[in-house]
Amino acid sequence: MSKEITSRKQDYSQWYNDLIIKGSLADHSQVRGCMVIKPYGFALWENMRDQLDKMFKETGHVNAYFPLFIPKSYLSKEAAHVEGFAKECAVVTHYRLMSDPNGAGLVVDPEAKLEEELIVRPTSETIIWNTYRDWIQSYRDLPLLINQWANVVRWEMRTRLFLRTVEFLWQEGHTAHATAQEAIEETEKMLGVYADFVENWMALPVIKGVKTESERFAGAVNTYCIEALMQDGKALQAGTSHFLGQNFAKAFDVKFSDKDNKLDYVWATSWGVSTRMIGGLVMAHGDDEGLILPPRIAPIQVVIVPIFKGTDQKLRIDEKAGELMRQLKDAGLRVKYDDSEHTRPGWKFAEYEMKGVPLRIAIGLRDIENNSVEVARRDTKIKTVLPLDGLSSRISALLDEIQLSMFNKAKDFRDAHIIKADTWDEFEQALEGEGGFISAHWDGTLETEAAIKEKSKATIRCIPLNNFQEEGTCILTGKPSPQRVLFARAY
Amino acid sequence: MSKEITSRKQDYSQWYNDLIIKGSLADHSQVRGCMVIKPYGFALWENMRDQLDKMFKETGHVNAYFPLFIPKSYLSKEAAHVEGFAKECAVVTHYRLMSDPNGAGLVVDPEAKLEEELIVRPTSETIIWNTYRDWIQSYRDLPLLINQWANVVRWEMRTRLFLRTVEFLWQEGHTAHATAQEAIEETEKMLGVYADFVENWMALPVIKGVKTESERFAGAVNTYCIEALMQDGKALQAGTSHFLGQNFAKAFDVKFSDKDNKLDYVWATSWGVSTRMIGGLVMAHGDDEGLILPPRIAPIQVVIVPIFKGTDQKLRIDEKAGELMRQLKDAGLRVKYDDSEHTRPGWKFAEYEMKGVPLRIAIGLRDIENNSVEVARRDTKIKTVLPLDGLSSRISALLDEIQLSMFNKAKDFRDAHIIKADTWDEFEQALEGEGGFISAHWDGTLETEAAIKEKSKATIRCIPLNNFQEEGTCILTGKPSPQRVLFARAY
Repeated sequence: MSKEITSRKQDYSQWYNDLIIKGSLADHSQVRGCMVIKPYGFALWENMRDQLDKMFKETGHVNAYFPLFIPKSYLSKEAAHVEGFAKECAVVTHYRLMSDPNGAGLVVDPEAKLEEELIVRPTSETIIWNTYRDWIQSYRDLPLLINQWANVVRWEMRTRLFLRTVEFLWQEGHTAHATAQEAIEETEKMLGVYADFVENWMALPVIKGVKTESERFAGAVNTYCIEALMQDGKALQAGTSHFLGQNFAKAFDVKFSDKDNKLDYVWATSWGVSTRMIGGLVMAHGDDEGLILPPRIAPIQVVIVPIFKGTDQKLRIDEKAGELMRQLKDAGLRVKYDDSEHTRPGWKFAEYEMKGVPLRIAIGLRDIENNSVEVARRDTKIKTVLPLDGLSSRISALLDEIQLSMFNKAKDFRDAHIIKADTWDEFEQALEGEGGFISAHWDGTLETEAAIKEKSKATIRCIPLNNFQEEGTCILTGKPSPQRVLFARAY
Repeated sequence: MSKEITSRKQDYSQWYNDLIIKGSLADHSQVRGCMVIKPYGFALWENMRDQLDKMFKETGHVNAYFPLFIPKSYLSKEAAHVEGFAKECAVVTHYRLMSDPNGAGLVVDPEAKLEEELIVRPTSETIIWNTYRDWIQSYRDLPLLINQWANVVRWEMRTRLFLRTVEFLWQEGHTAHATAQEAIEETEKMLGVYADFVENWMALPVIKGVKTESERFAGAVNTYCIEALMQDGKALQAGTSHFLGQNFAKAFDVKFSDKDNKLDYVWATSWGVSTRMIGGLVMAHGDDEGLILPPRIAPIQVVIVPIFKGTDQKLRIDEKAGELMRQLKDAGLRVKYDDSEHTRPGWKFAEYEMKGVPLRIAIGLRDIENNSVEVARRDTKIKTVLPLDGLSSRISALLDEIQLSMFNKAKDFRDAHIIKADTWDEFEQALEGEGGFISAHWDGTLETEAAIKEKSKATIRCIPLNNFQEEGTCILTGKPSPQRVLFARAY
């Protein structure tokens, strides 16, 4: 009846792919590493985007749009930045195709070679700071709080739907400030906005922290992140917020005159979340029957399925379902009535379970006679019979309950998977067991971090904000350490 | 006081550029032909996009997202399509940069050459129909009503802000149908949605019509369009809707089985509007003091400017303005209170005139004493004193009045510039005079159309829908003609 899904136990990675594809979120395209976001997946992204956009605007940001193409020379201007991005970028070298004079079909016109190659933006710091030079002269032009919703391209060799694709959709905030302090506050504020969104809208608990030097964004002074835990015990970075210091202002010569008419370089931040979050959503909440979507961002919150035999019955149910739809829509809910006749109720039940619709209402003749309907929760599978009178407020309350309950379930799982390890053996045992975040001492050197990664494939996900200070010794080298950090294998 | 704007009389083209740049809609970028859409311009685009998106969804469409890159071979599959787009496209040939071993800085890594070049999408018919092949099997999968909001790239040699840029933002609808009739109805329906939007939201009257063969979209069977008139007497195509027949279904082998299990190719439409519309908006409504934006899409509908001397006065005005802001916001209006102290009221008046804000409220101590404010309309420059009590409903009504009045003004202008020409002399005179749409007979041949274009630089903008049938003789060849068509010089 249901479409075949690989179970998590059997093959976690295949299970993930099955949920994406059979849940109608996305498809592979025939362009290497690029995906097609299907209408259902895109509706999910729209809900996420609209809520984030609202939160950005409420914190004083405005949207703008900068060019897709970055001249090659811009990338080189910030030394660390070019290191990070030159190795995996799409390069435009020509601007015309022609018919091959030798009959080989459509070929690049060699006459149409660009003087300077253009890079398809992997991120927009360089093109934006090159523009900010013209927009910022005085402290009165600051702060500049701009966000962009855009597609970006990074030529990743190993790709996975949503988690790592050559092209992805994201937002990138790029702000400019008069002082370091103000820029750091902005960096932290936006990390807070991300955490608020991921926890309260995606029902996904996160740990806020800062990255170590080796995991920093190319060109940043400090990278803040939120880290979530997946059901296989691997971590997923769900968003980052960077304090860029004056690095890009210096690279692009962006200065401002302060109140005393003194010139100084501008301080910067950038921050972004992407369609990758959808991968995290799928992996954190789904089960072996399919997706489980949090009500606040689910494209369909309630699906109504009629149970009938023959046209007479259907007409009577249609009428009642119509009333119900109006009632639920008036309450601001996203509802779908699936009265298609070429599939049976059982097929529909499985289909909307697969798609992770939070609530399913089944309605047949007997329900109408009893003035009630059967309501099934996707997350717990619990069914309840509810009276039709005042149904919409009960449904709204139930959706709130599901949202909270999904968060709590994910949080319980996450909390149960933060493991303290005091020795290398304990560290390895934890990794080889159920995984999770491993809280362990580290001597603070790049070398040890690299050695741990090499030996265990675990990386330092973050140093949590307001981290508890506790003397200890590094799990690998035994050297002194002032605090534990969080390790995990990660996506 | 005001920023210097070139007048329309002096240099219409420079006037247009001044409005865009000094009105803070957009800037040139340093990437050839690409623009930066500034926050104020982007807020305008967001209002347009959100309204259009709502209209698309109300007519049953859903959004999705397809790859930015199109394999070169896809472009070749539809013969007319490749003719139209291969000559001006951005071609990605490599996927990595490296440090030049000879020290010449960052260069393309010759090892990282793509086997097949990728084209940055100029439009997405090919990549989308290649995907639809997997999505469509049966009549039950139809109609497929999908829209995409995206950036596209066409390597235009002569570019102008908004009107013609190398990269632009747009939406492209791509629908699939079981019958030709249904696809034609969809094509016409979406043309109607565009006309509704442009007339009722952008306050710009349009003529609905079909293109002649030579002006058709590359790959279409029939191209419908809406045509607007600018103040210099030139026409601007504001949107197009294409009936694609089975051309793309055949090129990409997309078949469906109908109710009788018979296989047939799918019928298609595509339709799009872009940031180009903003160029039309600027040119149709602006005056020598700046932009004039229609209230329904203006980022700021009402600006409040305090008139004060010293902090004491300002505090009293701030309080009253705060009340006013709340009142107007509660009425759903987009309001800004500009209380910045480093610019004077006169400067602000000019600034918001430049930005085309429909209504300006000035408020000083005397106004508070009189319990009234001065309200100035941007379009007519008429000032009125209005009582503070019940102000928000008066302001709302005034905004509606401005919206209508802007449309009527543009329509009167347009109607006064549809000129009948029955001879070549009359035709040339009309063009050399104030321009406009010239309604004239044409013998229906490609040759005559081309000859007229060559001689006069005027093209056939459209054959209006439900065109009046009237026997006549072609203005150029004197051959018989069954109807007049609309000529104009165009952007």
